[in-house]
Amino acid sequence: MGGYGFTVPVLRLGDVLLVTLQGELHDGMAEQLQHDITSRIAQSRVTGVVIDISGVDIVDSFLGRVLAEIAAGAGLLAARTVLAGMRPAVAITLVELGLTLPGLRTALDVERAMELLAGDPRDGERSP
Amino acid sequence: MGGYGFTVPVLRLGDVLLVTLQGELHDGMAEQLQHDITSRIAQSRVTGVVIDISGVDIVDSFLGRVLAEIAAGAGLLAARTVLAGMRPAVAITLVELGLTLPGLRTALDVERAMELLAGDPRDGERSP
Repeated sequence: MGGYGFTVPVLRLGDVLLVTLQGELHDGMAEQLQHDITSRIAQSRVTGVVIDISGVDIVDSFLGRVLAEIAAGAGLLAARTVLAGMRPAVAITLVELGLTLPGLRTALDVERAMELLAGDPRDGERSP
Repeated sequence: MGGYGFTVPVLRLGDVLLVTLQGELHDGMAEQLQHDITSRIAQSRVTGVVIDISGVDIVDSFLGRVLAEIAAGAGLLAARTVLAGMRPAVAITLVELGLTLPGLRTALDVERAMELLAGDPRDGERSP
């Protein structure tokens, strides 16, 4: 098998779906992932999606588009998407490529992404 | 790069580390993962490790040993390990192979694994 046959697991944690990308995402996998996330949102009524890319060392325009489409699909189903764990080098490359991922919120790690979605940071004293 | 160079991300969620395995784990990756988990436990004083294998369709004796060693290492650092999301077919194969993963707790999915580690089914997180 190798990197081909498998799918990317979509985990549910409370009201949030968590997806951890590792290595490269091939065409078929991206479509499958988008489908899985969308149907899981509809089924389980989650309100947020966290996509961890700390294991990804290259975000190209293909992956950028996949992420944006996942976020757009989730948004249509009333779920917010946060991209977590982007490596600094990836951020630099994205800016150089002019891919600033509009419409995607980001967080330094999954824990902060969860807090962002929960709307109440653990140490936050200020409430709206 | 491809399936080779990358590492498996170890995410922290509250008091728990979460690792999502996808596809195959090569020798070097297994060692790296074990090292990462152990050092993260020591650094961040987490009390549990959840390894999600819902994206894994074959658990052989190598992976079985890796998982057992991760759990043993975590146990020495006072963290409990739960294996989450095992596919039914994987469970059947493991039994046929006589690999019943002694010393590893299991849960149907990550959410239940978190609950198991929290020891309290509703509110997994420490509240102030």
